[in-house]
Amino acid sequence: MRATVMFGAGDVRIEQVPDATILEPTDALVVVSRACICGSDLWPYKSMEQSEFGRRMGHEFIGVVEAVGSEVRTVKPGDVVVAPFVVSDGTCVFCQEGLHTSCLHGARWCSDTDGGQGEAVRVPQADGTLVVLPVGRDDALMPSLLTLSDVMGTGHHAAVAAHVAPGKTVAVVGDGAVGLCGVLAAKRLGAEQIIILGRHADRIALAKEFGATDVVSERGEEAVERVRELTGGFGVHSVLECVGYAESTVTAVDIARPGGAVGRVGVPQDQGVPVSQTSFYKNVSVGGGIAPVRAYIDELLPEVLDGRIQPGRVFDRVTNLDGVPAGYRAMNDRESIKVMIAF
Amino acid sequence: MRATVMFGAGDVRIEQVPDATILEPTDALVVVSRACICGSDLWPYKSMEQSEFGRRMGHEFIGVVEAVGSEVRTVKPGDVVVAPFVVSDGTCVFCQEGLHTSCLHGARWCSDTDGGQGEAVRVPQADGTLVVLPVGRDDALMPSLLTLSDVMGTGHHAAVAAHVAPGKTVAVVGDGAVGLCGVLAAKRLGAEQIIILGRHADRIALAKEFGATDVVSERGEEAVERVRELTGGFGVHSVLECVGYAESTVTAVDIARPGGAVGRVGVPQDQGVPVSQTSFYKNVSVGGGIAPVRAYIDELLPEVLDGRIQPGRVFDRVTNLDGVPAGYRAMNDRESIKVMIAF
Repeated sequence: MRATVMFGAGDVRIEQVPDATILEPTDALVVVSRACICGSDLWPYKSMEQSEFGRRMGHEFIGVVEAVGSEVRTVKPGDVVVAPFVVSDGTCVFCQEGLHTSCLHGARWCSDTDGGQGEAVRVPQADGTLVVLPVGRDDALMPSLLTLSDVMGTGHHAAVAAHVAPGKTVAVVGDGAVGLCGVLAAKRLGAEQIIILGRHADRIALAKEFGATDVVSERGEEAVERVRELTGGFGVHSVLECVGYAESTVTAVDIARPGGAVGRVGVPQDQGVPVSQTSFYKNVSVGGGIAPVRAYIDELLPEVLDGRIQPGRVFDRVTNLDGVPAGYRAMNDRESIKVMIAF
Repeated sequence: MRATVMFGAGDVRIEQVPDATILEPTDALVVVSRACICGSDLWPYKSMEQSEFGRRMGHEFIGVVEAVGSEVRTVKPGDVVVAPFVVSDGTCVFCQEGLHTSCLHGARWCSDTDGGQGEAVRVPQADGTLVVLPVGRDDALMPSLLTLSDVMGTGHHAAVAAHVAPGKTVAVVGDGAVGLCGVLAAKRLGAEQIIILGRHADRIALAKEFGATDVVSERGEEAVERVRELTGGFGVHSVLECVGYAESTVTAVDIARPGGAVGRVGVPQDQGVPVSQTSFYKNVSVGGGIAPVRAYIDELLPEVLDGRIQPGRVFDRVTNLDGVPAGYRAMNDRESIKVMIAF
């Protein structure tokens, strides 16, 4: 079969790889129908050292079940399924607490099994991992359904970790696909004011349609001043950090109101971030992390199905598998917010 | 009048200073009857540069109101009152939210007015700051009542920020007076297992009486291993960080269970603490900060008055004003947990 392999920074190719196949009785074999490129795929795209064997890519996909192992109970051949970006068994103590990203029998796409940016995938722990979608393979809702595999659930996680609630003031740091989904998540959780920090016209336009009430295009200290001006001098109750740089995390803490909360979902690029004292003296909590999107599908799926939320609008480009290398370039050059791959 | 003045590291003296007096109509003049030395006073005691004029010391005290300004309504001469370690007006938006440490009209003892380790204090915002105690000047409960000015409320804040609740597993990093009060706070909030990380025999003994179920005397990686052994390999739900060093904060995050929470009250000695990635991948929130102890007095005072909690047991030495310099030495040398000053 054919799949996306990254061999180094800027070097993404479509290669012939071994066919996906069932190895364990808890596996399912899924033929991919939709996948996408993630903002987090751009980190290795910028920095990966050249590798002879390369690494498989893709952790967000929808597909049709082709076959299942003997112990699989909840999905069957022919089902249209969405896969969250982490494998989970759905039964361990952490899955039961809704933290599927810490599953005791979890696994990662691409390192432990196939990647989503390929023709087919062996899905471990199929009963826990996959969610059956009550739609056909090429339903018009596919873009929004696909976001349940990562970005919409991740934006929602940031909002939950930032304690967004009715009437609260919110700021979203970052106008990528996750940041935009964070705006949507904050809106549906009842935020009164939603400030987006970003500077790309197309993304800002979509953020406004998703519910952003204010735009701050400054950065650093100027951004902090601007947010304070917009919030009576205090800062916001809830900050969604959707970038991951130390600088953006400092900004996130600085624009939080005393007693507020920062929900982080941007993959952190540094271990030591200089916010220990600023967060302490303001009593600002810093929470969030890798998003247990599996836990959120039950809550978000009905709203996608009835059209109340349309997170799929973050996709502004569709390609086939051969177009994936160009898709990486477009996202890396900020020509595209997020690229969908249709098989 | 006489008061404690620090002139440099290790240099604490009792000096003649200008009499405390009412300056604003919202002030009260309080004659101090009990005060104490705080673990945070030891930071300048270790590091303060020599100063010709020195700085006044003390932010925890109980006293008798001597006089009040024309606008003071809730306290009157003769009242026995406790003062939290931060001045607050009790009416601003942050005070109403229970975050008195971010009061819009707040002030700090010693920099904006007198210090508690002296014979008398001008108390700004007396209506918001002071709480009348329904006891006599020399009531036997004085040690425990005095802890409401800081350490008991601070330990409670750590427990609240760490989301301690019935049935949870808890670890307390640090066996100083605040850590010990953190054990007491976790116990009264219903924690099932309380692990104290510390290595001083007298403090550990008191921690056990306060409710600690396990003791970890190792540090760093060994402490992390030990806590995991005690918690089925997972770590604890709630960690109370009561030290403030980068190293202890790293330990706090490392011993937290995935999805858990760290409540910090140890005054942070570093701005960049290397926990950004470890907390992210485990979804451990880091909250807390300077404790709004004024907010907690209403909840804790009844339990002190009826003897259900006895946080005053953290005082293992009592002195008069002349004995304060020796008290600093004893606490700094770990000969004393916490020193009370009786006037």
